[in-house]
Amino acid sequence: MSILEGYHEECGVFGIFNHTEPANIAYLGLHGLQHRGQESAGIAAADGKNIIIHRGMGYVADVFSEHELTRLPGKHAIGHVRYSTQGESHLKNAQPVVVSCWRGPLALSHNGNLVNAIELRKILEHKGSIFQTTNDSEVILHLIAKTPAPQLKDALISAVREIAGAYSFLILTPDSIIAIRDPGGFRPLILADLNGSPVLASETCALDIIGATYVRDVEPGEMLTITDQGIHSEFPLAPEKHSFCIFELIYFSRPDSQIFGQSVYEVRKKLGRELAREHSVEADVVIPVPDSGIVAAMGVAEAYQLPFEMGLIRNHYVGRTFIEPKQSIRDFGVKIKLNPVRAVIEGKRVVVVDDSIVRGTTSRKLVRIIRNAGAREVHVRISSPPTIGSCIYGIDTPNEEELIGAQKSVEEIREYIGADSLGYLSIEGLIKATGNNSRNYCLACFNREYPTKKFSGKRIQLSLFESNS
Amino acid sequence: MSILEGYHEECGVFGIFNHTEPANIAYLGLHGLQHRGQESAGIAAADGKNIIIHRGMGYVADVFSEHELTRLPGKHAIGHVRYSTQGESHLKNAQPVVVSCWRGPLALSHNGNLVNAIELRKILEHKGSIFQTTNDSEVILHLIAKTPAPQLKDALISAVREIAGAYSFLILTPDSIIAIRDPGGFRPLILADLNGSPVLASETCALDIIGATYVRDVEPGEMLTITDQGIHSEFPLAPEKHSFCIFELIYFSRPDSQIFGQSVYEVRKKLGRELAREHSVEADVVIPVPDSGIVAAMGVAEAYQLPFEMGLIRNHYVGRTFIEPKQSIRDFGVKIKLNPVRAVIEGKRVVVVDDSIVRGTTSRKLVRIIRNAGAREVHVRISSPPTIGSCIYGIDTPNEEELIGAQKSVEEIREYIGADSLGYLSIEGLIKATGNNSRNYCLACFNREYPTKKFSGKRIQLSLFESNS
Amino acid sequence: MSILEGYHEECGVFGIFNHTEPANIAYLGLHGLQHRGQESAGIAAADGKNIIIHRGMGYVADVFSEHELTRLPGKHAIGHVRYSTQGESHLKNAQPVVVSCWRGPLALSHNGNLVNAIELRKILEHKGSIFQTTNDSEVILHLIAKTPAPQLKDALISAVREIAGAYSFLILTPDSIIAIRDPGGFRPLILADLNGSPVLASETCALDIIGATYVRDVEPGEMLTITDQGIHSEFPLAPEKHSFCIFELIYFSRPDSQIFGQSVYEVRKKLGRELAREHSVEADVVIPVPDSGIVAAMGVAEAYQLPFEMGLIRNHYVGRTFIEPKQSIRDFGVKIKLNPVRAVIEGKRVVVVDDSIVRGTTSRKLVRIIRNAGAREVHVRISSPPTIGSCIYGIDTPNEEELIGAQKSVEEIREYIGADSLGYLSIEGLIKATGNNSRNYCLACFNREYPTKKFSGKRIQLSLFESNS
Amino acid sequence: MSILEGYHEECGVFGIFNHTEPANIAYLGLHGLQHRGQESAGIAAADGKNIIIHRGMGYVADVFSEHELTRLPGKHAIGHVRYSTQGESHLKNAQPVVVSCWRGPLALSHNGNLVNAIELRKILEHKGSIFQTTNDSEVILHLIAKTPAPQLKDALISAVREIAGAYSFLILTPDSIIAIRDPGGFRPLILADLNGSPVLASETCALDIIGATYVRDVEPGEMLTITDQGIHSEFPLAPEKHSFCIFELIYFSRPDSQIFGQSVYEVRKKLGRELAREHSVEADVVIPVPDSGIVAAMGVAEAYQLPFEMGLIRNHYVGRTFIEPKQSIRDFGVKIKLNPVRAVIEGKRVVVVDDSIVRGTTSRKLVRIIRNAGAREVHVRISSPPTIGSCIYGIDTPNEEELIGAQKSVEEIREYIGADSLGYLSIEGLIKATGNNSRNYCLACFNREYPTKKFSGKRIQLSLFESNS
Repeated sequence: MSILEGYHEECGVFGIFNHTEPANIAYLGLHGLQHRGQESAGIAAADGKNIIIHRGMGYVADVFSEHELTRLPGKHAIGHVRYSTQGESHLKNAQPVVVSCWRGPLALSHNGNLVNAIELRKILEHKGSIFQTTNDSEVILHLIAKTPAPQLKDALISAVREIAGAYSFLILTPDSIIAIRDPGGFRPLILADLNGSPVLASETCALDIIGATYVRDVEPGEMLTITDQGIHSEFPLAPEKHSFCIFELIYFSRPDSQIFGQSVYEVRKKLGRELAREHSVEADVVIPVPDSGIVAAMGVAEAYQLPFEMGLIRNHYVGRTFIEPKQSIRDFGVKIKLNPVRAVIEGKRVVVVDDSIVRGTTSRKLVRIIRNAGAREVHVRISSPPTIGSCIYGIDTPNEEELIGAQKSVEEIREYIGADSLGYLSIEGLIKATGNNSRNYCLACFNREYPTKKFSGKRIQLSLFESNS
Repeated sequence: MSILEGYHEECGVFGIFNHTEPANIAYLGLHGLQHRGQESAGIAAADGKNIIIHRGMGYVADVFSEHELTRLPGKHAIGHVRYSTQGESHLKNAQPVVVSCWRGPLALSHNGNLVNAIELRKILEHKGSIFQTTNDSEVILHLIAKTPAPQLKDALISAVREIAGAYSFLILTPDSIIAIRDPGGFRPLILADLNGSPVLASETCALDIIGATYVRDVEPGEMLTITDQGIHSEFPLAPEKHSFCIFELIYFSRPDSQIFGQSVYEVRKKLGRELAREHSVEADVVIPVPDSGIVAAMGVAEAYQLPFEMGLIRNHYVGRTFIEPKQSIRDFGVKIKLNPVRAVIEGKRVVVVDDSIVRGTTSRKLVRIIRNAGAREVHVRISSPPTIGSCIYGIDTPNEEELIGAQKSVEEIREYIGADSLGYLSIEGLIKATGNNSRNYCLACFNREYPTKKFSGKRIQLSLFESNS
Repeated sequence: MSILEGYHEECGVFGIFNHTEPANIAYLGLHGLQHRGQESAGIAAADGKNIIIHRGMGYVADVFSEHELTRLPGKHAIGHVRYSTQGESHLKNAQPVVVSCWRGPLALSHNGNLVNAIELRKILEHKGSIFQTTNDSEVILHLIAKTPAPQLKDALISAVREIAGAYSFLILTPDSIIAIRDPGGFRPLILADLNGSPVLASETCALDIIGATYVRDVEPGEMLTITDQGIHSEFPLAPEKHSFCIFELIYFSRPDSQIFGQSVYEVRKKLGRELAREHSVEADVVIPVPDSGIVAAMGVAEAYQLPFEMGLIRNHYVGRTFIEPKQSIRDFGVKIKLNPVRAVIEGKRVVVVDDSIVRGTTSRKLVRIIRNAGAREVHVRISSPPTIGSCIYGIDTPNEEELIGAQKSVEEIREYIGADSLGYLSIEGLIKATGNNSRNYCLACFNREYPTKKFSGKRIQLSLFESNS
Repeated sequence: MSILEGYHEECGVFGIFNHTEPANIAYLGLHGLQHRGQESAGIAAADGKNIIIHRGMGYVADVFSEHELTRLPGKHAIGHVRYSTQGESHLKNAQPVVVSCWRGPLALSHNGNLVNAIELRKILEHKGSIFQTTNDSEVILHLIAKTPAPQLKDALISAVREIAGAYSFLILTPDSIIAIRDPGGFRPLILADLNGSPVLASETCALDIIGATYVRDVEPGEMLTITDQGIHSEFPLAPEKHSFCIFELIYFSRPDSQIFGQSVYEVRKKLGRELAREHSVEADVVIPVPDSGIVAAMGVAEAYQLPFEMGLIRNHYVGRTFIEPKQSIRDFGVKIKLNPVRAVIEGKRVVVVDDSIVRGTTSRKLVRIIRNAGAREVHVRISSPPTIGSCIYGIDTPNEEELIGAQKSVEEIREYIGADSLGYLSIEGLIKATGNNSRNYCLACFNREYPTKKFSGKRIQLSLFESNS
């Protein structure tokens, strides 16, 4: 029940090299990646000598006005959008991070999560480093600054040898961009071309708006050094088994993107078809939880040979905190976002399709809302297996104790959410739908098999806190 | 191409009588009507003696925080959301309007447009009235204040006898709410019940969130006086032919609403089926222009027996002005809102379904974007007839000179937008899909037959202007 | 203790006719009048055809940026600054007020207070008028609009014949400015010249910044009609005894202004000298309550032949609400604004000079602060008589019940504030210092002799309230 | 001409240890130091375990609302106000700075300027440090973090041994505050007591508002370690000749403060008397440039036995940028801040007293304004010697090329500013007035004798820039 309950993508990155208006292009590219993070946005631009940055809290379109963009001239730029959490959010943690070190100014945009960041931070602190944010990214910048290797790329290689976890980094210097993707390839990163200017982005959907052409994925473990001399590729790290984040396909990426070489749209359709095959049903209509469940629901409807209808309408004007009346309203949190179409639901046996169940509380409300709209039966179908493991690679998942999939059996969950039937896609079905190659994916959230040695399963505890209201 | 190009609903109204937290309920009700107006929002609350109001520019959730809501206590409340235009927008014109007159304080929320407002304003000015806004609503309040009838409802009757056009008014006094809908019934207005508290709203979709039950439509020409004595209904005006705004069904209302006694969702499905029946096609896939074209497109796909796919993905984070690079980007305006799914479109003969074409420029861009995503053919289907008339009843339509439907033949439009074929729904098809009773609807935008004597076809020219940046 | 406790001037007005950048000039003129009102500011500009206005809450420099000023083109402009109260303040009540009526658009800036505004408003409401603000100014605009006289100036004459109280009005039409001052002349209004462009302002201190030359005071009861034909003067009302507000000289006007034909600075000096002559003292040093008591204190020191020292330092960064610690701080309200200079005060017998005592609570705190800084004795001298009457002519005074001068004897006040001695200037001394002509001034706050028939002693009760946070 | 033209104090610091509401006390203390910096304000609070911080751009009263203060609980707090420059100002550079290092969290507030910050930064960068701001303070934190000494105070000692320049530091840990003042004692720092809670502040004027009692100055070179065990004093650095900033007495500190053991008020009075003795004059009246010139002008008037008058009135509502009309106004910059009192000036031979002349352009305007107000003669007296050197110890002075005192003779300056006579206080007179002990003061701005080896005379060039509009 993702838009309702909760996973949060941990960022999108974008870079453009050698363009006449790199900040404007980065601004549009980030807009195309806005679904990957709505908390803060930032762009760092370089003109060959200096790096100038602007960051702010909020959407790309709110953080940047013409005024800010014209103050970011130059030739090259990298940008970042950051996810939104319920709790504290600080400008301080916004990215890109820019620092000055003996190599000159450096800016960094990061998508992913380092699993040994706390350990490295402790080691660095004991060597005399000071930290001003709670970003992983500060760790990597310290490692780069501490390495005596004269070439930045060698320092970066040395630095990434010390880190573990998921990362797609873009590093901007006054005259170059370096991109590196971890050897597992957890997070996507693609290379594209805009009339000769190299472009880097988390997803292909950022390309269409700027008119760039997809070239290829940056490979797991690959480092690209982009300078006026061209694009240099190398693989400085020992190869590892691929660990593509399967949730990018199930939920996070936009359906109009190509991720890990596949169309997200087509994969979701297949997930739906596979899901329907695994769980037969007697029903009248299939409806999605919009927007994330739409494509899978179409696959479900197709396989069930049932009508597909938009039985739930999403209210797009949901902003921040909504004020609940004192006499509190049942299922309030869902009702301000979704509303049932009685004409579609009333008197029907309804199959409702979503991508996942996190805590279960929202699914329970949703089932009740659908029933109250007149459904005779409510059959829930989930286009992924039960979520039993918390992600340590850059997705803001609750702890296992809060994950209903980790705490209850499917039948218990069905009972809890009040559905007439509940069907999850099996891991096998998931693998089949995503290309029949289980070895490519990180499935930790479904099987608790963490591809990296699990250094630190929790997100870094904030030891600094800046109130930034 | 409505989300892209154009029409703007002119407001939604909401009222609640005799509740312990009327402002909180109005706030949620207005959230459910947010699609009818995003420029400004306001709530006026009454406690038996006084009326207190808060209004602001922006979304309901932005205008009202807990602080504002707790300052609006009382028993009764009316609220308003106002449409968003490109041009100037002023807090001054936000509603409800509150005035003091010899009857005491009065607040008014208005959905619609008076066609003789300018004439009445001139007459009133020549009798010594002064005007402080450019709202129609000020006219009606002047008329009410000038009428010597001791009862407010009689004054209102006297006032509405002088006005012509579309109106669904809610008037709040310290201890009553009066609702009146014009005899043509242009704009919807419904009566509902929340545990004994009467509720009024523009659409039924505002009811679900607060848990209210639909009672019935306020009838065209009906006036409801709601006091502690109960709800009194009367029909003070001469009956007229009904003139329900057909565009409420085609585009404006939310698909989860019941409007004019029909499910908007079902009507749109029928519009799509009828449209397909009128224009056969050889194609591979049907895609909607989201979100407004989705339901009609499903009807089209069903009738064509073609797959329905979400071939265009909407970017929901589109805020205000987007900054375009100097080297301007082709089809920029559409690209920041919609992106094609290549996997769905490539190599296909695509039918794209929208609710209307306004100026044609956006449709032209959209056709180009779909072709660039690899479509072999692009067939455009519009679930309404060509728009040839400008609305004077409360919808912000361009002048006829700007309406491509008024300026070009269908073939010329097809050529202009670059489609392989273009099919509009016929007026007959429209009538059939909306219940086979043409006499109920205002079809002026399709046939230029304005149900009222056309006093003034243009919106009031601002003679006052307040900059309110 | 005026900056501390409170009187609030009720506005300043400014006008300029026939200038190439009237809004810019009005902006600077209003800045020169900022001490007369800090709540809101506004400018209405006319270009011969239309009137355009911008208003906002706050200081002139905050309300207007270059953006707003460039949107106010034209030839003529009037402006307004409005006072600041503790309570509610609304953009709605900001001035100038602009309305449309049969005469076309009209803008009005008003300084003063009508004593029969409530009565007139009731009468107007019973004739069918509606009111949208709680400004007196709306009354006068209604009266003007209702008068059939074809010439605006005749309508204005007819309107002002119905009103009583204090008023200095500026009315802007698309091609003229009309100024009128009440026959008592309560509030100042001057005529000046800026290279041929007529200028109107509340005080002369607004002239220096724009380089305008003082021409003369607008006379009590005089009406000036300024058009392309020149400045026409007439006296349409029956002459009355002058009622210049003596508090303009004592406190409100800036010392660098000429008011009612006298230098404010010189008058205050004389008030101080007269005060010293009336109350002898054995003391070591004279200190003012800054800034309002400075000039009078210099006169006191001169007459006493004692050193004048700045024994209290004002903190100029006092903004809005200050947060007081839970363990509340004694004399907090004064301490955040003023701090004693121990080097000046310690071991001394101190004479502290202020312009008035309102409630007495602040004076009491101040005496305590001075004693705590080491003063051996504290002698309070007030450069005006005890305030016993509440102003009904445009100054925001507390009710008589709150005025310590109306409730206690001088000896009781002395005891309450804890001073070793307390001396007020006598009414005779006041008259002597202000030119020996008692017949010119309104002394109602000191003798309760209200020059006008006292229609309504209270400010209009708000019957409308708009929360405008 | 300081309020007009330009020096800017480089910050004020405040600390309180072991109090029930340390943030509230720090907030008030910073308000009392607001004259030392108006650009940004911040408070870091500690509760024994963690440090929490809030910082923002603007005045203390604007940066902190009740909401922010209640989020800063704890026992101890330090705060900072930062100066205002014309150019770029960034939240990033606001203080206190908080970092995490192996010693745990540390916050630092700094008043002063390190003259070898650039050198140290380069060295640190070459050892692998990264810098995120352009604050000197980051340098000292790096030095502290890099020192292996287990005790923080030993690390601080080791760190300050590497730095040179002016510094009054407050360092907050979760359970202690350490204060250190450079051996020259450039910037003031005092120790006070609030009912048993130790207080540290830049000036004594911060004490009165909170009711704290002055204990003593922190001595030059002294380090105070404040813990639950009490206050420990030590002098870890080699003693140096004192270098108290003489400009603190002439201009920066508030007249109600005791600085370097003297009353600022009394010193300024003596500066005025000495100045008058050095330069006789035939004149009628002495007027100050308010507010900074007031006390010296009183001394001048006393010594000349001439009347002291407030011949220039300051407009306190000057906010940010003022918009100048296209037809620019002569002496605009001064006119929006000061206005002459014609009654005081007209026909008189006027002595105008200010504390300094920076570029001369403002003095020139001021002389012209006074002449235009009718002065027969204008004699300028400056209560300090000609400023010939740029400050490198924490005061934002222009370069020597821009200092008129460094470029022209006194006679040339007199001619440039258009005065009838010009008299500066001599260095001897300055020394006499400030206690006859030249060895105590840094006089570098008057004699270019910089007490420290001049490492880097320029402020650090920003190598990072964050736009923060």
